[in-house]
Amino acid sequence: MKYEKEQRGDTGCLVKAGNVCFGGKQLVLIAGPCAIESREFMLETATAVKEAGATMLRGGAFKPRTSPYEFQGLSFKGLEYLAEARELTGLPVVTEVMDTVDIAAVAEVADMVQVGSRNMHNYALLKSVGECGKPVLLKRGMCATIREFLCAAEYVLQGGCNDLVLCVRGIRTFEEEVRFTMDLAAVPLLKEQSWMPVMVDPSHGTGKLSLVPSMARAAVACGADGVMMEVHCHADQALCDGQQSASPEDFSKMVGEMRLVAEAVGRTV
Amino acid sequence: MKYEKEQRGDTGCLVKAGNVCFGGKQLVLIAGPCAIESREFMLETATAVKEAGATMLRGGAFKPRTSPYEFQGLSFKGLEYLAEARELTGLPVVTEVMDTVDIAAVAEVADMVQVGSRNMHNYALLKSVGECGKPVLLKRGMCATIREFLCAAEYVLQGGCNDLVLCVRGIRTFEEEVRFTMDLAAVPLLKEQSWMPVMVDPSHGTGKLSLVPSMARAAVACGADGVMMEVHCHADQALCDGQQSASPEDFSKMVGEMRLVAEAVGRTV
Amino acid sequence: MKYEKEQRGDTGCLVKAGNVCFGGKQLVLIAGPCAIESREFMLETATAVKEAGATMLRGGAFKPRTSPYEFQGLSFKGLEYLAEARELTGLPVVTEVMDTVDIAAVAEVADMVQVGSRNMHNYALLKSVGECGKPVLLKRGMCATIREFLCAAEYVLQGGCNDLVLCVRGIRTFEEEVRFTMDLAAVPLLKEQSWMPVMVDPSHGTGKLSLVPSMARAAVACGADGVMMEVHCHADQALCDGQQSASPEDFSKMVGEMRLVAEAVGRTV
Amino acid sequence: MKYEKEQRGDTGCLVKAGNVCFGGKQLVLIAGPCAIESREFMLETATAVKEAGATMLRGGAFKPRTSPYEFQGLSFKGLEYLAEARELTGLPVVTEVMDTVDIAAVAEVADMVQVGSRNMHNYALLKSVGECGKPVLLKRGMCATIREFLCAAEYVLQGGCNDLVLCVRGIRTFEEEVRFTMDLAAVPLLKEQSWMPVMVDPSHGTGKLSLVPSMARAAVACGADGVMMEVHCHADQALCDGQQSASPEDFSKMVGEMRLVAEAVGRTV
Repeated sequence: MKYEKEQRGDTGCLVKAGNVCFGGKQLVLIAGPCAIESREFMLETATAVKEAGATMLRGGAFKPRTSPYEFQGLSFKGLEYLAEARELTGLPVVTEVMDTVDIAAVAEVADMVQVGSRNMHNYALLKSVGECGKPVLLKRGMCATIREFLCAAEYVLQGGCNDLVLCVRGIRTFEEEVRFTMDLAAVPLLKEQSWMPVMVDPSHGTGKLSLVPSMARAAVACGADGVMMEVHCHADQALCDGQQSASPEDFSKMVGEMRLVAEAVGRTV
Repeated sequence: MKYEKEQRGDTGCLVKAGNVCFGGKQLVLIAGPCAIESREFMLETATAVKEAGATMLRGGAFKPRTSPYEFQGLSFKGLEYLAEARELTGLPVVTEVMDTVDIAAVAEVADMVQVGSRNMHNYALLKSVGECGKPVLLKRGMCATIREFLCAAEYVLQGGCNDLVLCVRGIRTFEEEVRFTMDLAAVPLLKEQSWMPVMVDPSHGTGKLSLVPSMARAAVACGADGVMMEVHCHADQALCDGQQSASPEDFSKMVGEMRLVAEAVGRTV
Repeated sequence: MKYEKEQRGDTGCLVKAGNVCFGGKQLVLIAGPCAIESREFMLETATAVKEAGATMLRGGAFKPRTSPYEFQGLSFKGLEYLAEARELTGLPVVTEVMDTVDIAAVAEVADMVQVGSRNMHNYALLKSVGECGKPVLLKRGMCATIREFLCAAEYVLQGGCNDLVLCVRGIRTFEEEVRFTMDLAAVPLLKEQSWMPVMVDPSHGTGKLSLVPSMARAAVACGADGVMMEVHCHADQALCDGQQSASPEDFSKMVGEMRLVAEAVGRTV
Repeated sequence: MKYEKEQRGDTGCLVKAGNVCFGGKQLVLIAGPCAIESREFMLETATAVKEAGATMLRGGAFKPRTSPYEFQGLSFKGLEYLAEARELTGLPVVTEVMDTVDIAAVAEVADMVQVGSRNMHNYALLKSVGECGKPVLLKRGMCATIREFLCAAEYVLQGGCNDLVLCVRGIRTFEEEVRFTMDLAAVPLLKEQSWMPVMVDPSHGTGKLSLVPSMARAAVACGADGVMMEVHCHADQALCDGQQSASPEDFSKMVGEMRLVAEAVGRTV
């Protein structure tokens, strides 16, 4: 399997996307709103998270929503705002693609193309994304086993992609107090079995803002190569996932806490 | 929501696909191989399942496989063989589509287009399939809640589809003896909350052939509108899911058992 | 392992408790309230379920409740009422024991001693119950694997018990619409691997009354040796599990439905 | 509920057991073998873990084992060896009780009485342990919700116990690479909803030694009041859970790593 360490060869385990490097000593901090909702909110949030310490921007233009009557994202307009946010802040951007027909358009704008949890088993998308020429961020499915997650990665690598980063989030369990159970042991497990950098998304990993700071610290402590977080400058007005979105102030505080833990495990923020 | 009974109006709850009617007194029995592997096997299996009592044919031309190195299906060649099997037997055919770009080609051949478990959260595919003009069979995701399943159905109905059938299969649990835990209570639950016919797939519902006959009987007893089953004329040579495929003889025996249970609950086979 | 078929020897697979026989052609129908709440309700319900077709009575004197502030059962007074209900109806009784110190007292009254789901991993209790000299009904734990369930049975058999019956109920999953997911495939699985009769509890298997009739029929169809059900003559006043308790009229109707399905699979009610 | 913060009153949230204090700035490190297997191994391991930084000793005399044919523990002889290990090292000891009839004997020897995961729903045991006069360590059940865990704690508190500590471990999920999925978000969740100190057991939380160090660091990072770990001086000869037991050298290294993370979050080791 191409995801195995011995197959990586001389390339090493670092993955670059824009001016950011995953898998090195310095952790990658990706922040931004769940969905791009307006030009104004996107630019305001982008500026705020950069100031707070983010090294990469996130924002969804195409949103996989449970119901067709929920906000579906601004689509191509959203990509424009995302590109503008990059201009403004200098931060590279990652955004999700949901349909094979949109890959080229997304890859033209994004520094890194994301395949979301709901599409981790969408093999047609995985194959095509692997051929798009851009670095890829692949999120674990909500009930995918580690082996299935790695096999999904293999589909992307098979397509020719050499720059793949995994992202762990919550999985489905019987527990009712949280939307998802964050499976942090997946971080060392994935690192044992593959060469790919591993990010953690504590926002989708729990679905509950009050748990995000402690889970972000835990992610750093157990060896994650960075953290991906939902931050919104006006979370109370968010059209999507407001209950798990941090404010820029929250995020800034978390960056400080993660910095201390990172130093304790020989990393930097 | 369009899936609610009160929204169905005068159309009634019957769904037709080819010469088959889902949701009536007579149960629908869909049988065939997991994957279409060769012209010979497809035609042989089709003839055998028809004789054994099947009323619809299944067979995968595009296969969602965990690993990219497993058999991925014969693709368009497979569709040809499936069409030939229909000619030969007179049975309507259902087959899965995995990519929005293939929908038109699949819809041209199939009497009913299937969206598989791994794509139940693939909203781009759901939307497009809903617009294809053919009846749709939507399978429950391996860890989708009932509400998510119904919302996925809503995406298809939103696209304009009026002929949608749900199919229940196994879900992921901690149990290790079976590949999936068959959640039969989903049948009455879905019927309480929606107007759509509900099929059961006991092959993928358990992943173990020895459990299929008892689960097929149970499906009929709890009110399913039919059963969808993997049958292969040479299961030991199957390239996919051989361990859960029944032989035509097994299938024939199961049809007899299901007939008796169907009569006990006021249905026919 | 003593639970394996080849270890059962000449004894055969039938298990007797009072005048009832588990594992034969005739299904066992156990009915009664979740908890014994008063002499009056117990006797009224006992009379009603007998009339409706029950062949054994259930009723909890010691109740394992999630919170210490919920009704904990009438304890020894409850056992008295249960004995009185047996006198009145002639039906044998099964009731749960929760503490090793109470086993002797429970075994003196009960025709069959039950170990509940919450105590399936309580090995001290399993060992002692196996030595009590009475037939035992062992329920599957809410997240016990089939192997763990059979090993728990082995503890009881090791104690010297020869009359052990298993009872399947719901397991914990991510699904939110029901309290538990009823795992009916456990019925054929347990029968493949052991000699013990297998009952199904569709009341605790779903936690929702509207699903009980269809799941009771499915249980019979897939080969269960009987069904155990919560029936209460005044479910709206029940101190425990009222939302899943059937009325005697509901129960009577279900018996009729189960009878038809039983005949379809070569059994009787 | 007595577990709520506002009910704790002036007592504060610290819990003492022997010379150890849970819930303060200093983390509690409990180490020792899964089962007490011999006097020699117990004393050797006790000496080694003390040297490596443990502040409390663990060791099972009564072992809840899945099969009755697995090693069941040395029982009262084991308690003797445990007491001797305390004499030798000066470390307080915690050990599990499984049966109400053994509580008095265990409480006489132990500084802290443990109720294990398999007995978290054993309400008879919870009530009696709460009356035994010794501090109690309550482990989360393998599929207990947070609410059920807190209600189990309430049973102990109801019995009169004022010194209760919770311990989080792995829960059951679909994931197959690990025995359990460690649910670290339970730590902040329990601290939001109750006053009790929260320990983490990364050995039973994962069932895989290679994951223990990273999960131990993560536990400290997310706010746990300490860690409980299986350490065995000859893990390859362990009669129980050898595959997840650390050597004293492993443990010593982990203590060093946890110390650095503890300082990063304002705690000490």
